[in-house]
Amino acid sequence: MFKIPDHQVAGHQASNGIIGPLIDNSGRFYKPLQSDDRGSQEVAFYTKFSSNNEIPNHIRKFFPTYYGTKDIEASDGSGLRPHLVMEDIASIRTNPSLMDIKMGSRTWFPTASEDYIMRCLKKDRETTSLPLGFRISGFQIYGSEDSGYWKPERKYVLGFSTNDVRIALRKFVSSNSSDDLVPEPDCAFAETVYGGADGVLAQLLKLKAWFEDQTIFHFYSCSVLMVFEKEATLKGEGPGATIKLIDFAHVIEGEGVIDHNFLGGLCSLIKFISEILENLPQNSAQVSAY
Amino acid sequence: MFKIPDHQVAGHQASNGIIGPLIDNSGRFYKPLQSDDRGSQEVAFYTKFSSNNEIPNHIRKFFPTYYGTKDIEASDGSGLRPHLVMEDIASIRTNPSLMDIKMGSRTWFPTASEDYIMRCLKKDRETTSLPLGFRISGFQIYGSEDSGYWKPERKYVLGFSTNDVRIALRKFVSSNSSDDLVPEPDCAFAETVYGGADGVLAQLLKLKAWFEDQTIFHFYSCSVLMVFEKEATLKGEGPGATIKLIDFAHVIEGEGVIDHNFLGGLCSLIKFISEILENLPQNSAQVSAY
Repeated sequence: MFKIPDHQVAGHQASNGIIGPLIDNSGRFYKPLQSDDRGSQEVAFYTKFSSNNEIPNHIRKFFPTYYGTKDIEASDGSGLRPHLVMEDIASIRTNPSLMDIKMGSRTWFPTASEDYIMRCLKKDRETTSLPLGFRISGFQIYGSEDSGYWKPERKYVLGFSTNDVRIALRKFVSSNSSDDLVPEPDCAFAETVYGGADGVLAQLLKLKAWFEDQTIFHFYSCSVLMVFEKEATLKGEGPGATIKLIDFAHVIEGEGVIDHNFLGGLCSLIKFISEILENLPQNSAQVSAY
Repeated sequence: MFKIPDHQVAGHQASNGIIGPLIDNSGRFYKPLQSDDRGSQEVAFYTKFSSNNEIPNHIRKFFPTYYGTKDIEASDGSGLRPHLVMEDIASIRTNPSLMDIKMGSRTWFPTASEDYIMRCLKKDRETTSLPLGFRISGFQIYGSEDSGYWKPERKYVLGFSTNDVRIALRKFVSSNSSDDLVPEPDCAFAETVYGGADGVLAQLLKLKAWFEDQTIFHFYSCSVLMVFEKEATLKGEGPGATIKLIDFAHVIEGEGVIDHNFLGGLCSLIKFISEILENLPQNSAQVSAY
């Protein structure tokens, strides 16, 4: 009944003897509760978030639907273990392209341990988190039935420079994605995926408006997950491009202050996506009307 | 001809044997070039900024007018020394209330020395920079001819908690400012100083729109200076409340990326000011029409 998800691009992945998330065939995603504080903190966040009636519905849809916790057999064979149960975002798509973007120039929260802070700070400085306010944690780009997915190793992605990030965000919406960062992605799907009234940019701007105002939560080390399906996009079918926030093990109370760390990174990401749309070649309208 | 400014609330202040800025009686402010890189970097910024024609005029007015450098007698008696010459922001006001707000949750830039980074990080964590994305570096609030100014010590201001910042921003626009953080400031000038089409909030929002787009400069350890004059405000006379960015010794090239660190802090400051305006008592309109 449970299996290892096909479309996970970041985070702990289940494999031989290693614990990781599972999915079922009814569209639910089971994330094992980490044994340290992180598991209980993520449950605490989902519980608070679910019952908080100050979250508007148009914002709630940026979060995975939460179905509580459930004891199921862990993927590493260690027996029954509590899992968070939530919506499987990839399940409604056949060949999803996905990108996991960890938000914030700072992934550590003020009250963390000194050791944890120093480890995070090191990683933030070694990646684009510090210069860009976000880093790409992983992605997969669907090419075709023949070529399958381009899904680079985590280490390779974490080594991205600012320019690599720029290219990866263009390749993500290109028809000529291959298995490396060739510098001439055609951005054939940019207008459909990033642009338009329901596209990624419009969704990020809605999220931004909320972050300018909300002082309930600070989302440290949380990711924006972008999902879309090329074939469905070409045909104008299916659910279209979707943005979800994921990974809430380091969410803390906002205490009346906005999450300027997340918001700064979000504005930076918005600028990158806007520039791709502004710099589309003249024939892009033609391509997206294909 | 040169004298020590009356209305400096942060930064190195000239006093017996200590070098600091000077003013003349024609409205110019002379800042001694620091002997390390900071002096030359601030000159480099003003030179680049002055000649950059991508800066719109409605943004240029948030920066002090720059008149180049000039060798004048240093305030510590050490002889001729190069000084930055710029507009003296306080000179057009008789009894200015001023607040210096250092922007960004991170005051260090990525390429700084390890020692510098660790010193800044420590200060950012000890002050409200980390939780709020900005910290108050100093202020003076004019009371009356009898009471004069409330101008607390730098150490006291740098010890502010989030709640102290909230109260200080209210006291800054109150008629009952005294010499400590009494919790009931009346916010009598809030609508005139923070609100309105030309008030502080409207100016900060214009600055925000620019920071969401500009990728020319990253302003580390730079301050927003708020200035207004109570009596002129009451009479509806004078130049009104003014915002200026100051202190550009740690400005670096944006390299095509927005300054998410400054922008995040700016959004947080905007939220604080907005909340003051939203929570004004019903009689505030009456007070500001006084």
